[in-house]
Amino acid sequence: MTANMKGATAAETDSAILDLIRSGGVVSRINLANSSGLTGASISRIVKRLLADGLIVETGVGDPTGGKPRTLLQLNGHSRHAVGISLDVEVNIFVITDLCGDVVVRQESAGIGNESPSQAIQRVSGELNQMLSSEGIERSSLLGIGIAAAGRQDAHHHVLRANPPATEWELFALEDTLSATTGLPVVVENDSTCAAIGEFWIGRIPATADFAALYMANGFGLGLVTRGDVYRGSSSNVGEIGHMVVDVDGPDCWCGSRGCLETLAAPKRIVEQALEQVTLAEELGLRGQPADMRAEAGLIFRAASEGHPDCVALIEQSAGYLSKALLSTTNLLDLDQIILAGPGFSEAGSIYLRVISEELERLSFVRAVHPTKVTLSRAGMDSASLGAASLVLHSRLTPHQTTSRLALAR
Amino acid sequence: MTANMKGATAAETDSAILDLIRSGGVVSRINLANSSGLTGASISRIVKRLLADGLIVETGVGDPTGGKPRTLLQLNGHSRHAVGISLDVEVNIFVITDLCGDVVVRQESAGIGNESPSQAIQRVSGELNQMLSSEGIERSSLLGIGIAAAGRQDAHHHVLRANPPATEWELFALEDTLSATTGLPVVVENDSTCAAIGEFWIGRIPATADFAALYMANGFGLGLVTRGDVYRGSSSNVGEIGHMVVDVDGPDCWCGSRGCLETLAAPKRIVEQALEQVTLAEELGLRGQPADMRAEAGLIFRAASEGHPDCVALIEQSAGYLSKALLSTTNLLDLDQIILAGPGFSEAGSIYLRVISEELERLSFVRAVHPTKVTLSRAGMDSASLGAASLVLHSRLTPHQTTSRLALAR
Repeated sequence: MTANMKGATAAETDSAILDLIRSGGVVSRINLANSSGLTGASISRIVKRLLADGLIVETGVGDPTGGKPRTLLQLNGHSRHAVGISLDVEVNIFVITDLCGDVVVRQESAGIGNESPSQAIQRVSGELNQMLSSEGIERSSLLGIGIAAAGRQDAHHHVLRANPPATEWELFALEDTLSATTGLPVVVENDSTCAAIGEFWIGRIPATADFAALYMANGFGLGLVTRGDVYRGSSSNVGEIGHMVVDVDGPDCWCGSRGCLETLAAPKRIVEQALEQVTLAEELGLRGQPADMRAEAGLIFRAASEGHPDCVALIEQSAGYLSKALLSTTNLLDLDQIILAGPGFSEAGSIYLRVISEELERLSFVRAVHPTKVTLSRAGMDSASLGAASLVLHSRLTPHQTTSRLALAR
Repeated sequence: MTANMKGATAAETDSAILDLIRSGGVVSRINLANSSGLTGASISRIVKRLLADGLIVETGVGDPTGGKPRTLLQLNGHSRHAVGISLDVEVNIFVITDLCGDVVVRQESAGIGNESPSQAIQRVSGELNQMLSSEGIERSSLLGIGIAAAGRQDAHHHVLRANPPATEWELFALEDTLSATTGLPVVVENDSTCAAIGEFWIGRIPATADFAALYMANGFGLGLVTRGDVYRGSSSNVGEIGHMVVDVDGPDCWCGSRGCLETLAAPKRIVEQALEQVTLAEELGLRGQPADMRAEAGLIFRAASEGHPDCVALIEQSAGYLSKALLSTTNLLDLDQIILAGPGFSEAGSIYLRVISEELERLSFVRAVHPTKVTLSRAGMDSASLGAASLVLHSRLTPHQTTSRLALAR
């Protein structure tokens, strides 16, 4: 960490010391001096500021082997909070975490559906206000809001200059608008990247691992962590695995290409195929209305998880295409682990897990060198919103690290 | 750079100063102190060692604006050399560069064909000895040998514990054997990763760019540079784009999967398709002997480059599959640039370039945000051997950087 201290601003130094306290749990000023390489006098000054800000508290006394007793320091978890919101067509998920990353409150609300972006933003900030008052969380304790959202991004311009068909959402200045509405700093990140950050944050993944989070909601996205850091690509548009070509002669995709994974394996396709089976469609009460797509996919997922053979077959087919895309991905990127995350796996995740694990175990190009582990997200539907909240925490705790290259818009 | 000085060994510090001199061209001791953060006394000690080793020379006198004239320093390019050898079935390419990375001599020899690894190693080290004596290059000036080779790797064990069908080469301890034979340090790297390093080294690529080198020889490989550093994946097996599934219903591949890019677009497939056209096969004199595969593919590439319509059609078909795989890759990784490199592009590269550029311009998922530039390698067939030589130079010049994580085996 000393490496990053030289030339750092006071705020960066403070945040680096704060992060040392967080990762250390309970530490002494001397620990901090040793692990940061700063002088005792500098540490004293910084600690004084952090105490005054209420970000840390003094706690008990150390157990020295003879010398003078030392007061220990720890993070004041309840002093600050971060909001993470996963915006999705079907269901929005809010989490509020404390400064330690522990979830204080979690809530679901109706997804954005066909709402216009400005309607949705109004509603979401109203819902957030209600959460804050019912939980008694001070607005002034909020560090900011992280949003996990789908779609292409223009990180530089904060709106997307996309070719058609860009969605209304892609062209909307989400960060600025939500920040203006709530008066809070806002950061927007791809939902699949958030899911990868969320998995990393809840701590199952070694910092040295190269892993991906495959996120399924309406479509697919792949969040990538390589060399211990989130990889965002040239324009923060990494991970469009839904537009990987898995069948050159496949059906047309809205992106302009054909045979994309999304056209063959996404929930929409699963519903379309179920509708072609008249008995099955009647049995499940499917009507094929576009607005009901995700709900009807949910019925099929649930029936499959309960063993309905026709539904299992549909899910296995979707999982088969997905396994080809993930096989290609790990052959390309030599990953240690792939985590299946997002609402698409909440009902029938175990079927996807089985088909994809078997495929990678059988066919990964480097299978004899090392396995590519496939697991279901432990955070389930919450990984994207947890990741979004952790982006906000990172921006306060670790602006000295490269991970938090996204500035919080204000 | 100061960040890396603390806790560095003397050798690392020396190499960091050497790299500052290399990148500065001609520099003063005061420049070095300023840019390294080291004291004047430390710089003097290090410079003395580097001068004694003959790695740098004093050159002329600075033009100070009044003060005492300062002797300047520069790299002694001719003091050391690095060998890069690209091993390929059809043609081996040797380059010897000086310490500045300038090519001193380049030579081709017959490819490894069906030779056993030990036969090939004997022959290659004999050829290297001949190059050294005919060019008057002192053996003691060689820093080491970099080898660019195809196939899976086990970076930890230096041989591959591969599932069948592992080739004889994959199971061969190439580094150790060549090192024992030549008495020189040896580093082995994937040929496509070498090509990416070579492109980076010859300096066309900004350090901030995320780019890939698509390498075609017998099959395909993708070398990746992200965030200014080579990405090797979990086990140095990144880039197996030849085993990306582009047609789920496609033909069986030797890797166990089906519809892999390699089965649809590699030189072997192009020859097979030409053999199915009796008139064309006769016209080009194709016989379909496995040992002649690459040579016969070369005939088709050449005829296509001269405008032969049937051959152009075959190359366009191969390029079409390749463009789908590269479209999937940039949709997944959000790349700035893709460089087509290796012997497979030496004759008909312009046809591949046209088809792939058009496809990415038309279909890249983020085409409205930024283009994905496609270019032919400027180093042509030499990018892999240049990259292999630069790995050796890196290991001497920049062991303080993360780029050179590969230790030279001795």
